[in-house]
Amino acid sequence: MKKWKRSARLVDMTRQLLEQPHRLISLSAFAERYQAAKSSISEDLAIIHETFREEGTGLLETVSGAAGGVRYLPKANDYDALVISKRLCTHLENPDRILPGGYLYLSDLLGDAQFVRDIGRLWATVFSHSGADVVVTVETKGIPLAYATASFLGLPVAIVRRDSRITEGSVVTINTVSGSSKRLGSLSLARRSFSEGSKVLIIDDFMKAGGTVQGMIDLMGEFRAEVVGIGIMADSRVDERLVEHSMSLATVTDVDVKNRRIAVELGNLFGPGGFFDGTNPY
Amino acid sequence: MKKWKRSARLVDMTRQLLEQPHRLISLSAFAERYQAAKSSISEDLAIIHETFREEGTGLLETVSGAAGGVRYLPKANDYDALVISKRLCTHLENPDRILPGGYLYLSDLLGDAQFVRDIGRLWATVFSHSGADVVVTVETKGIPLAYATASFLGLPVAIVRRDSRITEGSVVTINTVSGSSKRLGSLSLARRSFSEGSKVLIIDDFMKAGGTVQGMIDLMGEFRAEVVGIGIMADSRVDERLVEHSMSLATVTDVDVKNRRIAVELGNLFGPGGFFDGTNPY
Repeated sequence: MKKWKRSARLVDMTRQLLEQPHRLISLSAFAERYQAAKSSISEDLAIIHETFREEGTGLLETVSGAAGGVRYLPKANDYDALVISKRLCTHLENPDRILPGGYLYLSDLLGDAQFVRDIGRLWATVFSHSGADVVVTVETKGIPLAYATASFLGLPVAIVRRDSRITEGSVVTINTVSGSSKRLGSLSLARRSFSEGSKVLIIDDFMKAGGTVQGMIDLMGEFRAEVVGIGIMADSRVDERLVEHSMSLATVTDVDVKNRRIAVELGNLFGPGGFFDGTNPY
Repeated sequence: MKKWKRSARLVDMTRQLLEQPHRLISLSAFAERYQAAKSSISEDLAIIHETFREEGTGLLETVSGAAGGVRYLPKANDYDALVISKRLCTHLENPDRILPGGYLYLSDLLGDAQFVRDIGRLWATVFSHSGADVVVTVETKGIPLAYATASFLGLPVAIVRRDSRITEGSVVTINTVSGSSKRLGSLSLARRSFSEGSKVLIIDDFMKAGGTVQGMIDLMGEFRAEVVGIGIMADSRVDERLVEHSMSLATVTDVDVKNRRIAVELGNLFGPGGFFDGTNPY
């Protein structure tokens, strides 16, 4: 049986915890893997917890009792959240994004897998104690954000489709009206996506008036699911918002197609009353 | 300035490396962050490298010279690859997946964000030295696998669309014929997805005869891009394969709709000549 030094144990435990966010690992499992006393394991975990906490990158949550153990909760601190969201604002302000009809090209931003993971970590921080059982998004652009968020929360993902595909089996479909362009559409979700009464976290890339998100909320009602949070990467400032209680990292306040100018500010996660209001301990 | 102990430094360095696969970090950056001598940093990195290597979870690659540093290459060892792929086979064999027309329901499997990341790590191991600049997939089910792979390779993702959306701007479109059902379709990719001459890694969830993948290869030709690898989670055993050189984790050899039986075996990554042939050092 391999003899583990503390230094190697710290490296390997850190890796195991980071790779399995929100998953409970028992002290016995660690003690067995490293052939070490539980007291040594506890000391190691205290070092890891303290390092994560001081850098504001996460916490180890201890669950006591026979079925207990420790789990890693990823966190982003207020400063990192601000840096990531300001970077998002700067990217969004680039006038080259303006497409015909005032749409914005976002595929380069959402194609940056590392940036998408950074945003997922922010949502995982915000919704860490939401009690969600599943992350729900709508194809196509919301998918990477939903998976990034879900992987930091240790949750599965269900994808709402705009067309019902034969490869989804039996589906529940509802009709939607886009709030901004009054365009008709439909949203479908495979019946076996999740069980009735699930708690869902909705994640999407962009929201104008909120017609699609409202459609998703209605669709969740068909599954008797409870929406416990709505996280939108960037929303638009509109006169008539269909959805309340959504959170955003950035808000597009104006798209001036003629003068090729996009105005963006930080979303409602920041500032007074926001999650990242600068008062969090780290 | 904070004083870092070696134990805290090991935890924090491990975290930094794991969260930024394939990204070069200079020794000076570490030395500055931890207010430590480069010789101490080198010793820490040696411990981390040795721990990763012994467990078969990755390597630290050192780049020497003025612009040098160290980067983390995630790896899956042969054993883990086998466990993950056998788990995939077992899941695929579940007869409840059979949909009308012999299609297979995969959304539950692909909705498991942790499992998707495990598969992404396998592809990142296989294509670690492919030289790819970008990971390309086709909507919708390939997207999570592509992002998981890309995040372990430190690469961006480009998503080929089946319909051309206004939010993509100018696109390049080609027509395709599905190899199995002879159905007509089209594939589009935003013109600004990546620069001409890029090296692309194609990742997708499922391949029958390979019409879609062949369409993607043709589309890559329009961008003067070079396909350096093709990774398919599960392929089907067919008489006439359109695509050569694709790699798979699992192969569906038969779908017997009448008797509700699906036969699955390990894909061509395993066995003689495969990447995970059991002879790798870890």
